Amino acid sequence: MNQIQLWQRYQQHFCSIPSLGISVDISRMNFSDSLFNEMEPQIQSAYAEMKELEKGAIANPDEKRMVGHYWLRNAELAPNDDLRKAINHTIGRIKEFAQHVHSGKLKPETQPLFKNLLIIGIGGSALGPQFVNQALGHPGQDKMRAYFFDNTDPDGMDVVVKQIEQTGGLATTLTIVISKSGGTKETRNGQLEAKEAYKKANLHFEHHAVAVTGEGSELSLLANRDKWNTQFPMWDWVGGRTSELSAVGLLPAALQGIDISAMLKGAKLMDDATRVTDTKKNPAALLALMWHYATGGKGAKDMVVLPYKDRLLLFSRYLQQLVMESLGKEKDLKGNSVFQGISVYGNKGSTDQHAYVQQLREGVLNFFITFIEVLKDREAASMMVEPDTTSGDYLQGFLLGTRQALYETNRESITITIPEVSPQMVGALIALYERAVGFYASLVGINAYHQPGVEAGKKAATSVLKLQLKTTETLKAGRGKAFTADQLANTMGEMDSAETIYHILQHLAANKRHVKMEGTTPGSTTFQWM
Amino acid sequence: MNQIQLWQRYQQHFCSIPSLGISVDISRMNFSDSLFNEMEPQIQSAYAEMKELEKGAIANPDEKRMVGHYWLRNAELAPNDDLRKAINHTIGRIKEFAQHVHSGKLKPETQPLFKNLLIIGIGGSALGPQFVNQALGHPGQDKMRAYFFDNTDPDGMDVVVKQIEQTGGLATTLTIVISKSGGTKETRNGQLEAKEAYKKANLHFEHHAVAVTGEGSELSLLANRDKWNTQFPMWDWVGGRTSELSAVGLLPAALQGIDISAMLKGAKLMDDATRVTDTKKNPAALLALMWHYATGGKGAKDMVVLPYKDRLLLFSRYLQQLVMESLGKEKDLKGNSVFQGISVYGNKGSTDQHAYVQQLREGVLNFFITFIEVLKDREAASMMVEPDTTSGDYLQGFLLGTRQALYETNRESITITIPEVSPQMVGALIALYERAVGFYASLVGINAYHQPGVEAGKKAATSVLKLQLKTTETLKAGRGKAFTADQLANTMGEMDSAETIYHILQHLAANKRHVKMEGTTPGSTTFQWM
Repeated sequence: MNQIQLWQRYQQHFCSIPSLGISVDISRMNFSDSLFNEMEPQIQSAYAEMKELEKGAIANPDEKRMVGHYWLRNAELAPNDDLRKAINHTIGRIKEFAQHVHSGKLKPETQPLFKNLLIIGIGGSALGPQFVNQALGHPGQDKMRAYFFDNTDPDGMDVVVKQIEQTGGLATTLTIVISKSGGTKETRNGQLEAKEAYKKANLHFEHHAVAVTGEGSELSLLANRDKWNTQFPMWDWVGGRTSELSAVGLLPAALQGIDISAMLKGAKLMDDATRVTDTKKNPAALLALMWHYATGGKGAKDMVVLPYKDRLLLFSRYLQQLVMESLGKEKDLKGNSVFQGISVYGNKGSTDQHAYVQQLREGVLNFFITFIEVLKDREAASMMVEPDTTSGDYLQGFLLGTRQALYETNRESITITIPEVSPQMVGALIALYERAVGFYASLVGINAYHQPGVEAGKKAATSVLKLQLKTTETLKAGRGKAFTADQLANTMGEMDSAETIYHILQHLAANKRHVKMEGTTPGSTTFQWM
Repeated sequence: MNQIQLWQRYQQHFCSIPSLGISVDISRMNFSDSLFNEMEPQIQSAYAEMKELEKGAIANPDEKRMVGHYWLRNAELAPNDDLRKAINHTIGRIKEFAQHVHSGKLKPETQPLFKNLLIIGIGGSALGPQFVNQALGHPGQDKMRAYFFDNTDPDGMDVVVKQIEQTGGLATTLTIVISKSGGTKETRNGQLEAKEAYKKANLHFEHHAVAVTGEGSELSLLANRDKWNTQFPMWDWVGGRTSELSAVGLLPAALQGIDISAMLKGAKLMDDATRVTDTKKNPAALLALMWHYATGGKGAKDMVVLPYKDRLLLFSRYLQQLVMESLGKEKDLKGNSVFQGISVYGNKGSTDQHAYVQQLREGVLNFFITFIEVLKDREAASMMVEPDTTSGDYLQGFLLGTRQALYETNRESITITIPEVSPQMVGALIALYERAVGFYASLVGINAYHQPGVEAGKKAATSVLKLQLKTTETLKAGRGKAFTADQLANTMGEMDSAETIYHILQHLAANKRHVKMEGTTPGSTTFQWM
C-alpha cells in the first residue's frame, strides 16, 4: 500500500474518543476489508457477554465470582445498593485517610509527618501501583515517595530499606501491605521482613502499617489483632490484575498526591466509549479484533508494546500481566484444550530502537507492535536542539520513522495517540486494555478472569519447603557424617527428590545454615551438619 | 521423564566452572541423545570461527571491523602491541580518574565533591551501565549515585533532573556522555538538554562533563573544543552491545565504587572456560546448542529469562539487546534471506510468577525459559519467617517449584546457578552470553556483529524532521489561513506525506508551537499559524 492509500485507510478506520482526546489507528494492520463483516457476529456476542458481566453475572464461572472492576469507576452500575455504597464509601475513606496522613493528623511514632510509602505486594498488588507511581510521579513535588517490596528476595528488601534510609528512614515511612487472601507468601514474608526492619530501627510496625485486604482474610485478622492504623477492602469481585482502580491502586496514588478522581474519571469515560456496539467506533473492540487478526486467534504472534515516553516504561510490563494472565489458558469455556495466550513485551521508544528494533525490522516475523504516541512533550517550553527542532520532535520523528521503516518490511502496527500522561489518561489506558482483553477472551471463548495455572507452582514450592525441613532434620540426625544427595534421599525415602535435595543443600551451605558442602559433581558432593 | 531419570540426566549433562562456581543445567531441555553428535561439526566450526575472531580476523565483514570485546579482559590476546597498550592504559586511566573524583582532586565548579553521576547514552551505551548499577549498587555506601538520560524524551529528562535535585543537584553531578560516533541524536539531545540544565543552575557544563567516544568523533571534537574534563576511548572493534567491559561500562562502575578488576576477572575466567572445544564442558556452547534445539535454529520460540533475584531484574533487558540485535538478521553470511532472531523477554522471579507464569504454564507453547538461581541470599543472616525457613528459602522454593510445574506440562528450561551477585559474577554472566551469542550466530551462519536494520528507522526519522521544518515554513507563509493536512501536502508537493504532516502538526499544536488546531477527523482538521 502506498502512502496516499495508507492516509485514506487511516481516515477510513480512524477511531477517536473526543471526550478524552485519545485515538486508535489500525491502518497499518493489513487486515482485509471483509474482516469486520466476518467477525461481526462474534464481536456482537462479546458485547453481549460484557453487558451481562457488567450487570453482575457470574462471569468467572469456575470461581463462582462476579467480575466488577467496571463498577469501581461508576458505582451506579453495581448490581446492588450495598456494593454501590461500599465502592463510594471506600473512595471517600481513601481520600480522607490521605488527607490525614498529609496533614499530620495521622503521624508516625516519633516524627511529625509520614514522608515515604513502602508498598508490599506482588503481581496485581504491585504492578499497577508501580506503573502509576512512575507514570504520574513528580520527584520533589509528590506528597510522599513510594518504595516497593514486590518479591521474597532478602537482598532485594535490604536494598529497599537502605534506599529508604537515604530519605528519612522507616521513622517517616508508612507501610501498606496489599494481599487479597493474605496468604500470598511473598507478601507475608515482605511484611515480616518489614516488621523486623522497623524493630531494628526501634519502631513499632503497627504504628506505621495499613492493610489492603479481603474481609476476614489472614492479613485482616492480623491487622486487627495487632492494631494497625486501618485497613481498606479488597473485594472478591475484583481480580488482582484489574485492581488498580480499587483501593489497591487508589490508596498508594492518593497518598503520593495523585488526583485519583481524575484517574477514575478517565476510566469511566473510556468505559463509556468502549460500551458502544458500533465496532468501528469502539477502540477496545478494534484492539481485540486486531489482536485476533494478527495472532490468528491463537497467539501466533507476540504483542510488542512501545510507548514513546519514559513515564510509560512500565505500562508494557503492566500489560504483560493483564494480557498474559487473562488470556494464557489451556482450556476454553467448553473444556477443550486450546493453549491460548498472547506474549507481551516491550519497554519504551526510542530507547528500544537501540536494543532490539534491529530484529523487529529484519528478523523473525513473530510479532506485531503497538506504538503509543504522547503529544505533549513536557511541562515547560522546550529548548531547541537544532533550528526549530526540539528533543520531543526527535522523539516523535523516531516513532513515525521507525513505524514507517517497519511497515515497509511488512511489520504491522497499531498506534494509540494520547494527548499527555495525566491521571485521566492513565485511568483511560487501563480501562481500554481491560475491556480489550475481555472482548478478546470472548472472541476465543475463554475465561479471562481466573488463573488456574498459578496454583501448581505454589504447591510445588510448598513441597520444596517441606522437603527442606525434612532434609535438615535428617542431616542433623546424622550429625558427624557426610551424605551425598542420593544417600539423603534414600535415608528419607524420597528417592524422587535427590535433585531438589541437592539444590536445597547448596543453598543452605551458601547461606551458612549449618550445612558444610564438599565436592565438585552433583553425584559426589557431600553435605554435613555443622 | 520421571524425577529419578531427571536426576541422572542432570548429572550426565552437568556443566560447571569450578573457577567461578557457576553451573549450567540443560537437563530439562528434552533434546535427544543424538543432538551432540549431530551438531558436533557445526559447533566445531563455531569454535574455529571464534578462534579467528579472537585473533583479530575481520569478523564483521560488511563493516570491515575486527571484533575484539574478548581482548578487553585479557589484553594479552589482542592482535598487536598498540591495542594491548591501549586497553591496559585505558583501564589504568579509568581507575586513576575515579580515584581523583572520589578524593576531590577533581572537583565540581562550586562544591568540594562530585556525588552524582549523570550518564547520557542509549542502547549499548546505557543498558550495560544500567544493569551493572542495579546489580552491584549499594545505596548509602556507593561512592556516587547514578542517574541516566537514555532517551530523547523531554519530560523524561526533566524528571531525572528533578531526582538529581533531591540528592545534591547538578552542582555535585558529573555527567558522562557516551556515544561512539557522537552522531546518535538521542544522546546529542541529552547532552544539549543537560548543558541547558547546568546553565539554569548557574553552572558550566564543561566543568562537569566527561566524554566516552571514538577518536575524532563529533563528540570528541566538541569535548576538546569546549575543554571538558577528559575523554575515554571507544574503539571501532568493540560493538555497542558488547561494550560493557570497555570504558562505556567500566567508567561509570568505577566511579560508583564497583570493583572493575573483579568484573574483568570474572569475564576473563568465563572466556577461558568457554574457549574449550569439548562441547559438554563448554557452558556457552551448551547455551547456543539449546537455543538452536529449542527454536529449531529459526527463532521459533521466545527466550524467557527469569533471574530469581531483584538485582538481576535488568539482566533480561540487557540480554534482550545482546541477543536480539546480534541475531535478528534478514540475511545470512551467504546473502540468503533467512529472517533470523530469537525474541527475549522477562523480568524476575518470583515476581513474574504473579504476572505471566499463568500463560507459560498453560497457554501457548511458544517459549523456553532460562532460570537464574543465586545461592547467596543477603549480606547478613536472615530472620526466620516460619520455623527454620527464610524469605530466601521461599525464593528458591518458588524457582524449583515453578520449574517443576512447568516441566510437567512440557515447558522446557535451562537453569544457570551462580553463587552470588558480585562484580566477578556480573562479568562472568556478560561473557557467558556474549560467547553463546557468537556461537549461535555461527550455527545459523549470520553476522552477529552488525545492525543494518537500525539505519532505516533513523533515516525515516530524519526525513520526518525535515518535513516538519517544511511544514512549519509553509504554514507560516500561509499565515492567516487554516489548512487541512491534505491542503498542506498539496501546497508542499508532498502528497505522500499527508498523514505524517497531520501527526507533526498535532504534536506542534499540543506543545504550543505556533500551531492552532481545530476539528475532529483527520481529513477535516485544520491547522493555522499563530
